[in-house]
Amino acid sequence: MQCGVLVDYCDVFISCLDSHSDGPNYAMSNGGGGAGASISTHLLDLLEEPIPGVGTYDDFHTIDWVREKCKDRERHRKVTHHLISECITISLLNELNAAFARALAGVIDIAADWLNDLKEGVCLSAMWFNHEQCCWDSNETTFAERDKCPQWKTWAELILGQAEGPGSYIMNYFMFTFWALSFAFLAVSLVKVFAPYACGSGIPEIKTILSGFIIRGYLGKWTLMIKTITLVLAVASGLSLGKEGPLVHVACCCGNIFSYLFPKYSKNEAKKREVLSAASAAGVSVAFGAPIGGVLFSLEEVSYYFPLKTLWRSFFAALVAAFVLRSINPFGNSRLVLFYVEYHTPWYLFELFPFILLGVFGGLWGAFFIRANIAWCRRRKSTRFGKYPVLEVITVAAITAIVAFPNPYTRQNTSELIKELFTDCGPLESSQLCQYRSQMNGSQAYPAGSDAAAAPGVYSAMWQLSLALVFKIIMTIFTFGLKVPSGLFIPSMAIGAIAGRIVGIAVEQLAYYHHDWFLFREWCEVGADCITPGLYAMVGAAACLGGVTRMTVSLVVIVFELTGGLEYIVPLMAAVMTSKWVGDAFGREGIYEAHIRLNGSPSLDAKEEFPHPTLAREVMRPRGNDPPLAVLTQDDMTLAELQSIISQTSCNGFPVIVSKESQRLVGFALRRDITIAIENARRKQEGIMLNSRVYFTQHAPTLPADSPRPLKLRSILDMSPFTVTDHTPMEIVVDIFRKLGLRQCLVTHNGRLLGIITKKDILRHMAQMANQDPESIMFN
Amino acid sequence: MQCGVLVDYCDVFISCLDSHSDGPNYAMSNGGGGAGASISTHLLDLLEEPIPGVGTYDDFHTIDWVREKCKDRERHRKVTHHLISECITISLLNELNAAFARALAGVIDIAADWLNDLKEGVCLSAMWFNHEQCCWDSNETTFAERDKCPQWKTWAELILGQAEGPGSYIMNYFMFTFWALSFAFLAVSLVKVFAPYACGSGIPEIKTILSGFIIRGYLGKWTLMIKTITLVLAVASGLSLGKEGPLVHVACCCGNIFSYLFPKYSKNEAKKREVLSAASAAGVSVAFGAPIGGVLFSLEEVSYYFPLKTLWRSFFAALVAAFVLRSINPFGNSRLVLFYVEYHTPWYLFELFPFILLGVFGGLWGAFFIRANIAWCRRRKSTRFGKYPVLEVITVAAITAIVAFPNPYTRQNTSELIKELFTDCGPLESSQLCQYRSQMNGSQAYPAGSDAAAAPGVYSAMWQLSLALVFKIIMTIFTFGLKVPSGLFIPSMAIGAIAGRIVGIAVEQLAYYHHDWFLFREWCEVGADCITPGLYAMVGAAACLGGVTRMTVSLVVIVFELTGGLEYIVPLMAAVMTSKWVGDAFGREGIYEAHIRLNGSPSLDAKEEFPHPTLAREVMRPRGNDPPLAVLTQDDMTLAELQSIISQTSCNGFPVIVSKESQRLVGFALRRDITIAIENARRKQEGIMLNSRVYFTQHAPTLPADSPRPLKLRSILDMSPFTVTDHTPMEIVVDIFRKLGLRQCLVTHNGRLLGIITKKDILRHMAQMANQDPESIMFN
Repeated sequence: MQCGVLVDYCDVFISCLDSHSDGPNYAMSNGGGGAGASISTHLLDLLEEPIPGVGTYDDFHTIDWVREKCKDRERHRKVTHHLISECITISLLNELNAAFARALAGVIDIAADWLNDLKEGVCLSAMWFNHEQCCWDSNETTFAERDKCPQWKTWAELILGQAEGPGSYIMNYFMFTFWALSFAFLAVSLVKVFAPYACGSGIPEIKTILSGFIIRGYLGKWTLMIKTITLVLAVASGLSLGKEGPLVHVACCCGNIFSYLFPKYSKNEAKKREVLSAASAAGVSVAFGAPIGGVLFSLEEVSYYFPLKTLWRSFFAALVAAFVLRSINPFGNSRLVLFYVEYHTPWYLFELFPFILLGVFGGLWGAFFIRANIAWCRRRKSTRFGKYPVLEVITVAAITAIVAFPNPYTRQNTSELIKELFTDCGPLESSQLCQYRSQMNGSQAYPAGSDAAAAPGVYSAMWQLSLALVFKIIMTIFTFGLKVPSGLFIPSMAIGAIAGRIVGIAVEQLAYYHHDWFLFREWCEVGADCITPGLYAMVGAAACLGGVTRMTVSLVVIVFELTGGLEYIVPLMAAVMTSKWVGDAFGREGIYEAHIRLNGSPSLDAKEEFPHPTLAREVMRPRGNDPPLAVLTQDDMTLAELQSIISQTSCNGFPVIVSKESQRLVGFALRRDITIAIENARRKQEGIMLNSRVYFTQHAPTLPADSPRPLKLRSILDMSPFTVTDHTPMEIVVDIFRKLGLRQCLVTHNGRLLGIITKKDILRHMAQMANQDPESIMFN
Repeated sequence: MQCGVLVDYCDVFISCLDSHSDGPNYAMSNGGGGAGASISTHLLDLLEEPIPGVGTYDDFHTIDWVREKCKDRERHRKVTHHLISECITISLLNELNAAFARALAGVIDIAADWLNDLKEGVCLSAMWFNHEQCCWDSNETTFAERDKCPQWKTWAELILGQAEGPGSYIMNYFMFTFWALSFAFLAVSLVKVFAPYACGSGIPEIKTILSGFIIRGYLGKWTLMIKTITLVLAVASGLSLGKEGPLVHVACCCGNIFSYLFPKYSKNEAKKREVLSAASAAGVSVAFGAPIGGVLFSLEEVSYYFPLKTLWRSFFAALVAAFVLRSINPFGNSRLVLFYVEYHTPWYLFELFPFILLGVFGGLWGAFFIRANIAWCRRRKSTRFGKYPVLEVITVAAITAIVAFPNPYTRQNTSELIKELFTDCGPLESSQLCQYRSQMNGSQAYPAGSDAAAAPGVYSAMWQLSLALVFKIIMTIFTFGLKVPSGLFIPSMAIGAIAGRIVGIAVEQLAYYHHDWFLFREWCEVGADCITPGLYAMVGAAACLGGVTRMTVSLVVIVFELTGGLEYIVPLMAAVMTSKWVGDAFGREGIYEAHIRLNGSPSLDAKEEFPHPTLAREVMRPRGNDPPLAVLTQDDMTLAELQSIISQTSCNGFPVIVSKESQRLVGFALRRDITIAIENARRKQEGIMLNSRVYFTQHAPTLPADSPRPLKLRSILDMSPFTVTDHTPMEIVVDIFRKLGLRQCLVTHNGRLLGIITKKDILRHMAQMANQDPESIMFN
C-alpha cells in the first residue's frame, strides 16, 4: 500500500490504440490520426485528408491561440530549411509593409498639406503647389514675410481682387468654411458608402483584432483605400483630429494585405497577428518618426500576445520604416524627428513642481475627456441622433471652421501649432509668442532667448491660446468617434502643448519679475535664460497624451524621439507618471479600452486586474436552473442525434465524454468543424445515413451486421482541451485565458465534466462584478 | 437523448459540502476551509488556522507562480484601502531602492577611481584625492598638461625621486603590477571567505531567481556588502571586467533587503520578484544613466514574468534613479549620460556598409566569446583547476597587469578608453588619435574636425589599438567567470569601440585619399567632415555588446541614452540586428543563457522554441518500467501509510485521488506541506496516532467507534491542480509552464490520473531532444 497504483494506460475505450502511432504524424489533435491497423482502412484514408474549412473561423468570433500556434509548429516541422526562408519571408514582409506604409504616409502628408492650404488660397503659378512650395523661390527673403509672395493668392484676392479690408476677410472666412464643409462631406460620404470600417482611429479595433477576434474586412483593401483618401480629407477639413492613429490602422491594413502573399501568415490567425503587431509598430514609427517608440507602443498599448520574437520583429519593421523615412527625408532636416527642438538651458529642480502640475492637468483632462467622449458616443449609439452621421460630421465641421477661423492658433494646422509651441524663442523667431520687450526695443542688452518682460504680443497670444485651449477641448470631445478617420494623438498633444506653453510663460514672467524670490534666487540671475516655455509645452503635451491613452514608457520614448529632448527625460517621466496616477484615480481605462468596452468586443485586457474571490463553478455554464450542458458521447450516438444536438443548441463547441454515466472527458469538438465534417462525409463517403453511428474513438465500435456505415470524427476532435477544476479561483482562470489566449475551458470535478467556461462567460462575469450590464458583451 | 446530462454537483465524496461555504473565505485552496456544520468543530478550528511554514519553499526549489499570486490576491481582499497604501508602499520601496543603489554606485565609482589611480601614484596634498581631483586646482591650465601637477607623484618620483628614465619606468611598472595583484588577491579572498555568491556578474543568477527559483542568500546583506567592496577592488585591479552587471546584482540585493521592510513583498515570492524586476531596471538605470534602457533591459533580458504593472513600476524605479543621478551629477555636465557625444555630421547611406560589417564582427565576436568562455568555464568546473580560485585570479591579474602597462590604451581605465574612442576629434583634443596632418602643421586650412591625412600619431595609435583589441579579446574570455565580481558590458563595448574606431579611421582615410571614387564623390568633398570615426566606435560597441548578450531593442536604447546620439538610430539598429543574426547563426543562446545552462539552473527560457512533436505522455512520469506513481487517496489512508509513502519516495508532491479504483483526481498536496502539517498536528492535537485515518475531504469519513482521532489535511490540499491530457503536445505544455510559471502539472487520460510532469522533467526532456546530457539539470 505504500505506493500509488500505476494507471492502466490502455483504457477500455482506447484499448486498440496502436502504440506505434505516437510518431510525428500523430502529434496534432487536428492533424492525422495515425496509421494503426484498422478494418476500415478505406474510410480512414478518406478522412485523414484534411477536411477543407476545418480550423477556420467565422466572422466576429474569437480565435484559439493555442490551436493556431500548434498548427504553425506542425507546418514548421514539415518544412525543411525553414530558418533561412522564414527570415527572408519576414524581412520581405516587414520591408514591403514598412516601405509601403511610409510611402502612403508621405502621400497623405503632401495631399493633406495641399488641401489644407487650398482652404486659404491657391497657387497661381502651379495649382498643385501648397503655400510653402509656392513661395519657395519667391523674392521675399525676409523671414517674417516668407508667407507672402505674389504667386500665392488668397481667395479674396482671387475673387474680389483685394487682399485687405472687411470684405476680403469675410470672403476668406466664407471660402475657408466652404472648403472645410466640402472636405468633411466628401470624407463622411466616402466612408459611409464604401467602407464603414474606415471611420475612427482604428486603434481600439486593432487591439481587439490583435487580442484574437475576427473582424472580416476591417483590414481589407477597401478599408485601406478609403481610409487613406478620407484621412486626407478629414485632416484638411480642419476638424480637431490627427492622422497618427489612422496611420496605424493603414499600416495594419498594409500588413494584412501583404501577409496574403505568404500563405504561412494568411492561413494562420496567430501568425497573422504577429505580422500585425509589427505593422502597428511600423505605423507609429511612420507616423511620428519614432522607431523605438513604435515598438514600445505596440508592446504596451496595442498587442495582446507579444512574444519576444515579435519584439525584435517589430524592431526590424520600425528600422525599415525609419530607414525609408530617412531616405525620403520629409522634414527636410535629415533628422528622423518631427518636432525637432533644441533647448539651450537645462531644467532646474524647482521646475519639477510646474511639470507635475502639468501632469495633474493631463490626468484630469484625460479622465474628463474619456468620460465625456464615451457618454457622447453612447448617446450617439442609443438615440436617433446616431442615424445621421453625415449631418453630424457636417455640423461639427461647420462649427469647427466657423469658430476656428478668427483665431490664428486654431486656424493653422494643428501639428504646425504644436511645432510653434514647442519651439524656444530665438532671435529669428517672428511669432507673436516671442515678442519680448528687450527684443522689441532692438536693444540686445541680453543674449537672445534670455528671459525678458513680455510685450503686449505675448499677452494677446496668451488670450488667444486660452481660447484655443477651450475650443480644442470641446471640439475634440465631439470629434473623436465621428464617422470619419480621426486620431487622437495630435489634438491631445495640442491641448497639452497650449496648456504647457501658458504655464511656461507664466513661470517665466514670474522668474523675471521676482528673481529675488528664494525659489529663483539661486539659479536664475537677471538676464539669464532660466525658463524655457517650449519645454513646458512639450511636457504638457506628453502629460495630456498620457492622460488620454494611459501609456507610460512608450509615450516618453515617443516624445523624446519626436523632439530629440533626451535630457528632459526626468521632467517627461514625472509628468507622465503623475498624469497616469491622476487619471487612474478617476477610472483605470484609457480611451482605447473604453471604446473597446463601448463596442462590446470581447477583449480581455491584460492590464485590468480581476480582484473578486469567485470560483470557476460560479461562472461556468450550466448554472442553477440552466438546461444541462450539451455533450456528445464518444461512440454511442447516431448522426441524427448529433445533428439534433447541433441544431437545438447554439454553443460553439461540444465536450465529448466517455459515456453519460461516467462523465469522464475525452475531448472537445467545435460546432463549425462538426458541421463541415458531416457535410464533407455526406458528399464524399457513401452509406452515411441518419442512423449511422458517429464515433470519436480511434477505432469503430462493434456494430450489428445490418447497421449502416459509421462516421468517424476523431480527426476533428481536440484531444487536449483545457480543463480546470470547479474549485479553481476565477482569477487563475482569467489569467489562463489571458496568457494562453483560450477560447473556452472545461470545468471538471474529481475527474468528471461539470461545465464549460467561455471567454464570453468570463467577460460577462467581469461586467457583472463591476456592476455593469453583462449583456453589453455582444460577440462570442 | 438530445442533450447532455447535467453533472451531479454533489459527488459522493463531497456530498456534505455546504453550499453556503462558497463565500470569499472559501475561495482559496490554501486558505480556510469553510464553516460548514461539522461534528468535530474543535478539530476544525485548530486546523483552519494557517499552519506556520505551509506555503514556503526550500532552498534551490522552484516557486509556484500561480499559488503565490493567489496568496497575494487573497491578502489584497483582506486589506481595505489597499490602493493608496500600496501606491505609497511601492513608491517608498522603489525610491529607497533606487536612491540607495544610486548612492552605492556613487561610492563604488569614487572608490574605484581612487584605487585605480593609486596604482600609478599618490596625491601628496591629500591622500584621498584621485589624480583628477589632485590636479583640480593646479596651475597647469594647459589642456595637454592637465594631468601633470606637482601635488601628484608617481611611485617612481616618490621612491626613486626621479620622474623619467628606465629606472622609474620599471619602478612604476612594478608598483602598478603590485597594486593590481594586491587588489585582486584581496577581492578574491573576501569573496571566498565571506560571500561566495558575490562573484561573477550575477545577471544569470538573477534571471534564474526571477524565473522563480529560490537561492537563499544570493540577494542577502552579506552578498551586498562583499560584492560592493570586492567590485571596487576588482575594477581597480585592472582586470578586463566592468562594473555594470554587478551593479544590477547590487541593486537587486538592495531591492531584496528593502522588501523585508514590507511583509507583503517579503512573504510572497511572486511579489518579491516584481520588486526585483524593478530593481534590476533601476540597476541598469544607475549603471549607465539610461532609465528607459533599464526598463527595457529588465523586460527583454532579465525578467521571466513581466506583467505590464511591472513595466511602469520599473519605469518609476528608473525615474527615481535617474532623478537621484541628476541630483548627484556625477559626470559633471548636468546630463544624465555617461559617454556624452556630439557629432556634427549626419551619416550617409554608403556608411551603412561598414556599419553592417561592424555588426558582423560583433556577431562573430559574440559567438566566439560565448563558446570560448563556456568551454573554459566548463573546464574550470570539471577539472582540478577550479579548486584554486585565488591562484587563478592572481595569475590572470598578473598577466593582465604585465601586458597592460606598456600600452596606454590598455593601461587606462576601460570606460575612459571607451569615452576617448567615442569622442570626435575636435580642436581641443590632444589625444594621439586626433593627430592629423593639417592640425599638426598649425595651418587651420580646413575647419577643425574635418577629414585630413593621418599623421604618424594616428598610425601608432592604430597599432596600439590593434594590440589592445587582441589583448582585450583574450583576457575577457579568461576573466568572465573568475571568482570576483565581473561584468561584461564594459569589456564588450571596449572591444567593439576599438574595432569600430579602427574601421572608422580606415574609412576616413579612404575617403580622404580617394574622394573622387564614385562611392564618396557625391557627398564627400575635399576638406569636408564626412566620416566620424567616433560614430563607428559607438556602432561597434553596440554591435559587440549585442553579439554577446543578444539584446536588441534595449541595447539600442541604452546606447543612445548613453551617448545622446538619437540621430544615429538607424546605424545602431542595423548593426545590432546584423550582430544578432550573425550570432544566432552560431548558437541562439546569449552569454547569460549559456551560463544559466552551465549552472544547471532550471530556467525555462522564454525565447527558446520547443520544436519537437512529442506528446505529454512521453514526458510524464512514470514511464515504461518506472515504479508506479506515488498517489494518496482522499480518505482511506492511515497516518502510517502516508508517512511510509513520504519516506519511501523523493517526490516533491503527491496527487490525491478519489480511490485507487477510479483514479479520479481530487487535488495535489506538497510534500513539504504534508510534513509540516503532520508535525503541527502531532504537537497541537491530542490523539493523533500512527493508525489515525488521514482524510482530504470536507468531512471526516465514518469510522468505527474505537478508531483513533482522524487527521484532516484538506487545508493543505491544492484543489485546483493543473491538468493536461496525455495527448497534449509538449509544445503546449511547455507554453503553459512558461506563461503560468507552473511547478508541476498532472496528466490525465479520459478523466483518470496517468502521471505527472514537473519543470525538471520538461528541462530534462528538452536537453534530451537537443542531444544534451539530461542529467545536467540539477535542481528541482
